[in-house]
Amino acid sequence: MSQFINNKENIVTEAVDGLISTSGGALARLDGYPHIKVVVRNDWDKSKVALISGGGSGHEPAHAGLVGEGMLTAAVCGEVFASPSVDAVLSAILAVTGSEGCLLIIKNYTGDRLNFGLAAARAIEMGFKVNMVIVDDDIALPDLAKPRGIAGTVLVHKIAGALANDGGSLDEVTKVAENIIAGTKTIGMSLDTCTVPGSPKDQRIEDGKVELGLGIHGEPGFEKLDYIDAKQSIAAMVNKLEPLMSNESHVVLLNNLGGVSILEMSILANELVNSSIGKKLKLIIGPASLMTAIDMRGFSISVCPLTAQQEALLKSPCALSVWPDCKEITPIAIVDLPDGLTPVRHNPSKHDETATLITQCCEIMIAAEADLNALDAKSGDGDTGSTVAGAGRSIIAALEGLPLADHPKLFSAIGQELSQVMGGSSGVLLAIFFTAVGDASSNGASVIDAFKSGLNRMQAIGGANLGDRTMVDALSPALDALDNGLEAAAIAAREGANHTSTILVAKAGRSTYVNEEQLKGNIDPGAEAVARLFEGLSENR
Amino acid sequence: MSQFINNKENIVTEAVDGLISTSGGALARLDGYPHIKVVVRNDWDKSKVALISGGGSGHEPAHAGLVGEGMLTAAVCGEVFASPSVDAVLSAILAVTGSEGCLLIIKNYTGDRLNFGLAAARAIEMGFKVNMVIVDDDIALPDLAKPRGIAGTVLVHKIAGALANDGGSLDEVTKVAENIIAGTKTIGMSLDTCTVPGSPKDQRIEDGKVELGLGIHGEPGFEKLDYIDAKQSIAAMVNKLEPLMSNESHVVLLNNLGGVSILEMSILANELVNSSIGKKLKLIIGPASLMTAIDMRGFSISVCPLTAQQEALLKSPCALSVWPDCKEITPIAIVDLPDGLTPVRHNPSKHDETATLITQCCEIMIAAEADLNALDAKSGDGDTGSTVAGAGRSIIAALEGLPLADHPKLFSAIGQELSQVMGGSSGVLLAIFFTAVGDASSNGASVIDAFKSGLNRMQAIGGANLGDRTMVDALSPALDALDNGLEAAAIAAREGANHTSTILVAKAGRSTYVNEEQLKGNIDPGAEAVARLFEGLSENR
Repeated sequence: MSQFINNKENIVTEAVDGLISTSGGALARLDGYPHIKVVVRNDWDKSKVALISGGGSGHEPAHAGLVGEGMLTAAVCGEVFASPSVDAVLSAILAVTGSEGCLLIIKNYTGDRLNFGLAAARAIEMGFKVNMVIVDDDIALPDLAKPRGIAGTVLVHKIAGALANDGGSLDEVTKVAENIIAGTKTIGMSLDTCTVPGSPKDQRIEDGKVELGLGIHGEPGFEKLDYIDAKQSIAAMVNKLEPLMSNESHVVLLNNLGGVSILEMSILANELVNSSIGKKLKLIIGPASLMTAIDMRGFSISVCPLTAQQEALLKSPCALSVWPDCKEITPIAIVDLPDGLTPVRHNPSKHDETATLITQCCEIMIAAEADLNALDAKSGDGDTGSTVAGAGRSIIAALEGLPLADHPKLFSAIGQELSQVMGGSSGVLLAIFFTAVGDASSNGASVIDAFKSGLNRMQAIGGANLGDRTMVDALSPALDALDNGLEAAAIAAREGANHTSTILVAKAGRSTYVNEEQLKGNIDPGAEAVARLFEGLSENR
Repeated sequence: MSQFINNKENIVTEAVDGLISTSGGALARLDGYPHIKVVVRNDWDKSKVALISGGGSGHEPAHAGLVGEGMLTAAVCGEVFASPSVDAVLSAILAVTGSEGCLLIIKNYTGDRLNFGLAAARAIEMGFKVNMVIVDDDIALPDLAKPRGIAGTVLVHKIAGALANDGGSLDEVTKVAENIIAGTKTIGMSLDTCTVPGSPKDQRIEDGKVELGLGIHGEPGFEKLDYIDAKQSIAAMVNKLEPLMSNESHVVLLNNLGGVSILEMSILANELVNSSIGKKLKLIIGPASLMTAIDMRGFSISVCPLTAQQEALLKSPCALSVWPDCKEITPIAIVDLPDGLTPVRHNPSKHDETATLITQCCEIMIAAEADLNALDAKSGDGDTGSTVAGAGRSIIAALEGLPLADHPKLFSAIGQELSQVMGGSSGVLLAIFFTAVGDASSNGASVIDAFKSGLNRMQAIGGANLGDRTMVDALSPALDALDNGLEAAAIAAREGANHTSTILVAKAGRSTYVNEEQLKGNIDPGAEAVARLFEGLSENR
């Protein structure tokens, strides 16, 4: 897999430049490229305690993206996953430290400890007030003498940053940092490793597996588990955290390691809030990407019991737009549906033959799900089968409540049902279709004429003509042939559907966005669905 | 590849619940799961114009994550990539629309147009004031009658949301929305398709290729190009945008389609700012994930010329923490290095034999880059080879400036050079090593004794003992054997290095985080580097 980079050598300097030039003037950097890559606040007057963090790059937005009022004063950026040099750290200390001194926030890795530690020693020799805290929040390896510093580091940035911004002394700021470090426990999980620029990707985690207890540099997790689902993933992590948690109220940080979609992160947040530790969680930060491992498809959970001071510092406003705010976890507020929108009730009635026919139609659609999705993946977004099959399942589930014996009302009821459950353009078009069929039918039209009337209404609203590469291309000839029986209709529908594979310019629907080469030889999935329906009904007679 | 979801059927409802319960009480939802998935502001009093958007899910944070003061009043969520139903849209309109009316912001897809359009018509029949705008910012397909609505939609949310929040009338809000839609042009690019939950992934884009002109549902891009680098990617997109741009100042939205790392997005931002349209770009939103296609490894660029009103509305504060702020693009502010940190200058001198020997050492390390990275990938983070080879390249580049004829000074100079360029724990440890070698050497120690003295200092600071699975395990026996010549040292180093593959509990360095099974049979990469060095020197004699 390629990455959006240029030369491997310039990754960090180019990224830092991109960050600074889009910071609205809030950030600057020290001279000294390529060896010294230090991002500093551009409005810093050295009047308060300075906070300096950093380490290897690849954890964005940490740490350079967390420089700003209320968080860091400076970030020292190493190359990807490599500690910055002593000189780079020292230059940051000298550049931002005033009479109030500075605090170095260091993740517990040998390289960072050495480089930041030696730089601190040199700065102290030069007369600066420098304190250091070492973050070691990882609980993956319980017996380890030197646990890693991972996502919990961001809590330290926020809490120390808020107090420093409020004018706290170096000792006070150091103390709150030490306290939150002492309380913070983090565990990570991932479905995949990360892509280290310029290195071949380690394909260590097979499909169907998940690693628990990962670091943020692609180090292997401590345990490899079978992947089940989001709920079990959260449960496995909570299982590690819960024994270490007191009964106090906690803050939780739900951190995206980089490659998990926002959709999935929200599902994980839901599981976390509803997990066995959910009741202890008072405040949440995230879900958000704060301490990433480049593009890793994983996440971490950090917890820390809260004092009143910590709560106030975590919640205090922060100018940084990447900071997701620290929010109260609340029950879900549910607002009543507006009047007139509670689901429509039909007067149910029984009619075995009709029930059998409808069930047949639905089962044909359900059976076609995978094929229709595959066809749609070639010309659209791959969901036609799921949409149509979902509608089929809903209709079967609703069958007992439908007015089966009253065909005009039945068509309208199916239209209403589809408009409630389907969504998508096919959903609303079919709702329009069946509503119009019901209208015509209640006005005395024959079934075939009623269906033709439905087709007319659907074409008028949807705007699709014959030859536009839509379901109309199968449905229209099928209805025309229906006077000659189902088999004739099936043949006509199939011919119409097959013809769509030769239409290279779609004029309606989503395949209008697709070029000729991709359309060539592929049948429109809507037309295919219609053909399958008539063919299935014809065979089953 | 698995995803962090549970049942495919509940993806959107679970994600919405996760979003609401972590919103700090800012959000609520309408009753009506599973068919009606509508997220609303929990503090909404209907006193101003309501803004409603939505569509298929899978674009998070759009649209539910953009509900809040200053942006949307409600979001109607369909299933993944499927439009919500008419009833769902109608329920949102009825729930949030007061006497000032509401504006529907719709992306230009048939399903959304139909469902939102029919719902608007029904609400108007019921006496509500409802306006609609259709976003069609995609320029991928220049001849298309109905361009797609993609990331530019977020600009409409912000600009209309700011004016509605300021008390603008429905007509005024509609007008600013129409104006920004008229000006906004977007183009997307991706290295990979997205993972639609529950569907097999379309492996359409081969490694080494990139698609230009993509939609946000996995639809194929309009062109497939050879992937070159970040610069050429931006150039290809700018090439499409530039002919459509006036000479006015523009706002640009740099949107992550979901799966691009933040590191890469910053590099892309840097290229964009420095591209041929850079001078026209006044304001930037992002880089940020605002309109995603689940986990797509792509991004989009949207541009729009600015009026003074638009600029003010885009920059106005917004309570939503996912909104990345609209910032001025500025030149990069560079702060001078603090005194005493400008790179050290040595008094260069010539010494051919020494130059040859140093070059040999460096070339041996450069040649070992890939092997050492591969070893480190098994027990650490895969960068030992790059770090060591990078140091080698730097030393070769610095050779002419080194005091080659003065060996004590030469060792110190190499130490300083390494401390400036290497970073990482090996960098600082080698800097400590060479500085100590230089100290001992200038005190009259023999070369071998000086090296042993360096080893002692490095062990004292780094804390690694023999048998801890570090480079010490090869270096220490090699120096002990060096009295008997290079060949003996090479044999000792190799034995020491090989022995590390049997040490199953690392006590120092990054492989302390790795479990026994992963360490077994793998040589420590630092020890391997030492063995390679002595072996190479021994062979080249």
